[in-house]
Amino acid sequence: MHVGIIGGGQLGRMLALAGLPLGLEFTFLDPAGAPCASMLGRHIRAQFDDIAALTQLAEATDVLTFEFENVPAQALSGDSALTLSPNGNALRQAQERSLEKTLFERTGIPVAPWRAVDSQQELDAAVESLGLPLIAKTRSLGYDGKGQRRIRTLEDAKSLYAALGDVPLLLERLVEFDAELSVIGSRGRDGSLVVYPLTRNQHRDGILVRSETADFSRELRRQAVRHLRAIVEELDYVGTIAIEFFVCGELLLGNEFAPRVHNSGHWTIDGASHCQFENHLRAICGMPLGTTELERPAGMLNLIGEVPGIDPILKQPDTFLHDYGKRARPGRKVGHINVVAETRQRLGERLDTLAAMLGYA
Amino acid sequence: MHVGIIGGGQLGRMLALAGLPLGLEFTFLDPAGAPCASMLGRHIRAQFDDIAALTQLAEATDVLTFEFENVPAQALSGDSALTLSPNGNALRQAQERSLEKTLFERTGIPVAPWRAVDSQQELDAAVESLGLPLIAKTRSLGYDGKGQRRIRTLEDAKSLYAALGDVPLLLERLVEFDAELSVIGSRGRDGSLVVYPLTRNQHRDGILVRSETADFSRELRRQAVRHLRAIVEELDYVGTIAIEFFVCGELLLGNEFAPRVHNSGHWTIDGASHCQFENHLRAICGMPLGTTELERPAGMLNLIGEVPGIDPILKQPDTFLHDYGKRARPGRKVGHINVVAETRQRLGERLDTLAAMLGYA
Repeated sequence: MHVGIIGGGQLGRMLALAGLPLGLEFTFLDPAGAPCASMLGRHIRAQFDDIAALTQLAEATDVLTFEFENVPAQALSGDSALTLSPNGNALRQAQERSLEKTLFERTGIPVAPWRAVDSQQELDAAVESLGLPLIAKTRSLGYDGKGQRRIRTLEDAKSLYAALGDVPLLLERLVEFDAELSVIGSRGRDGSLVVYPLTRNQHRDGILVRSETADFSRELRRQAVRHLRAIVEELDYVGTIAIEFFVCGELLLGNEFAPRVHNSGHWTIDGASHCQFENHLRAICGMPLGTTELERPAGMLNLIGEVPGIDPILKQPDTFLHDYGKRARPGRKVGHINVVAETRQRLGERLDTLAAMLGYA
Repeated sequence: MHVGIIGGGQLGRMLALAGLPLGLEFTFLDPAGAPCASMLGRHIRAQFDDIAALTQLAEATDVLTFEFENVPAQALSGDSALTLSPNGNALRQAQERSLEKTLFERTGIPVAPWRAVDSQQELDAAVESLGLPLIAKTRSLGYDGKGQRRIRTLEDAKSLYAALGDVPLLLERLVEFDAELSVIGSRGRDGSLVVYPLTRNQHRDGILVRSETADFSRELRRQAVRHLRAIVEELDYVGTIAIEFFVCGELLLGNEFAPRVHNSGHWTIDGASHCQFENHLRAICGMPLGTTELERPAGMLNLIGEVPGIDPILKQPDTFLHDYGKRARPGRKVGHINVVAETRQRLGERLDTLAAMLGYA
């Protein structure tokens, strides 16, 4: 089968690395000259809203998917929507934060109090009704902490539009949480669902730096899987999906979801029987899904910007390099390190050692 | 680093799939128009004895390796020898069966009684001194059971040259063995050595069909590792190597070795922490070697020729497809299936089930 992928970045690259052994072929649509996935298949160089190029991609391939959620949904409403997986509706819900929150609420997922605001007047009213502190996010096109700002004082609220621009915003009560967690699963065309072990995530300046499988309570696991199932059934979802939650005691609060493979699931390449990339492809190509069992406790550290010498890192036991073949720039994800260990304690120690080597500690 | 690989078949393809995440680049030299590895890097289309093309490959890359052992060694004696890993000496020993047997003897590895013969007269004398039954093999360019013939009677001996052609032969006493076993290891530039768990192999018509990690005795494991160490030290070997043995009670008899990644080590992709392909690249690029621990009992079945529907196979638990993207032809290896299981017994059952589905049972 021939898979078309909108976007040719590292997620596309890892999809292709997982898909070539399945006998799949790939074509990537990406505006860059040589995006890091493009060497693994054909490359259509075009903007993401180029309807002619999207149509060409759809016609050349058997199934169409995307590796990031900022594809203009209206560009995908013609011929290119016919084989799109996940479907355009799932994509749209993830592109607009108020639709996302509404979806969470509709499927019974608790969320922090929030308001969509489009003017200083609405903003003032939202601050009044939600109370401080808040977090303000642009309603679309945000990622890696971009387009977010905390509001701790009334002065912050007044300068908000100046800082984020005159764009649709979502205000959300800043919750005190014990941990950030994500649940990742893959749903097949036949409705079958596989779910990976829960992952604990750590961010720095809004960018994920560390993920690891963690021993969350059975109750949290139960909630996460129930929420995941509710979302994929509501959206008639096909493919891999990631939902991020805040852990507040024994309650999960929905934060956001990604209709695609997700950075917090990169550990599955070396830590689970079949990784999130393979299962996304199996799902969208109508193949049976692979098992998601945890082989051993596993974790991941992102490589961001200029990375120090890699040899000392590779000398650490059970450490796996995933270099994306991208030029380093400050704040740019250029690869990740996966780590496995026999026990969670040993895993934590290994991640701590590596985090110190990478300057994250 | 940029790796040049002589040969662009499935071994080259799996090397590249393992090497791209390490940040490596690849160029393949292969006479075919679109060998299955070539899409993962650059491709120099040339014969394997094209010295100008080999020199071009060597100049364009940082390190040179090969994915099969039938590269004309004399073609690799010039500039292209400078960065060749494993070195040309190791390659030459593996290309000629009498050199290979002599190497085994010199390094203390028991072998079945053998003789090199170059005429009917020498053949008759060898039959006389070795006794029947024997196996005759062409001394070079044999693979997958090609260029081999059993001699059970004096009549077989008389028709041998007619059957195999007027080529240098090696005659070897046919031994009764309990099993066929291979040991695979990788040696780094600094002399460090990692060894994978022993693999039990099953052939059909001279072609490997099934490999699995097996519970051989500690004594056999000790012998295998000692022999492997002796060979790599004798050859000052860098890279992954495979040695095949016959198991006769508690004794290993050396059969042959491959100075490269080997079909009987394909299970390591899904069954070991770091696979034979990754460790070959880590070794030749001077990177620290990865751990070779067995995660779970693992095995492999080759896909040969036209394969029946793949979906029923993928529905089996913990089953991994490795499609080489090659056109099917009778007797041609077009992919393999890896399988893991919690216990050896369960692994054996799973392999039996799949072998039956593939018509091997």
